[in-house]
Amino acid sequence: MPMDYVLAIITGLSASNAKEITLKARGQAITTAVDAAEITRNRFLKDLKVSKIAIGTEEMPAREGENRSRMVSTIEIVLTKE
Amino acid sequence: MPMDYVLAIITGLSASNAKEITLKARGQAITTAVDAAEITRNRFLKDLKVSKIAIGTEEMPAREGENRSRMVSTIEIVLTKE
Repeated sequence: MPMDYVLAIITGLSASNAKEITLKARGQAITTAVDAAEITRNRFLKDLKVSKIAIGTEEMPAREGENRSRMVSTIEIVLTKE
Repeated sequence: MPMDYVLAIITGLSASNAKEITLKARGQAITTAVDAAEITRNRFLKDLKVSKIAIGTEEMPAREGENRSRMVSTIEIVLTKE
């Protein structure tokens, strides 16, 4: 599953000629975002640096059948070309 | 499960009178580490700041029945008292 994101990072950076890309994830997908950042940097784009990592909390609305909202952790990882 | 870590953070900081504490996690536990940091800061120790977040990759030795090592993502979160 991280490989889908790795591909999105690589194509996103090359198509737009952007200098940076931000990965955002919530809950269990946090690990996937970290995996995607690490695999991209270690195997594909070795000049990519992690320029910022921030964590936070978001309130998610109650799902059907639940009676209250849930707090979910988030991560934001910014990757920048040298 | 994050609550075990939250308790460890709170007791660790108060017992040792330390000014900072570092959470380290690998693989799926990355999300738990982020949850623990967020819950501690939002609910219990509101003067705690995230002073550093770093991600990395570690090689884990092959487990029994596997024939090669695996790469696993890591996170390190440093929480500092103001």
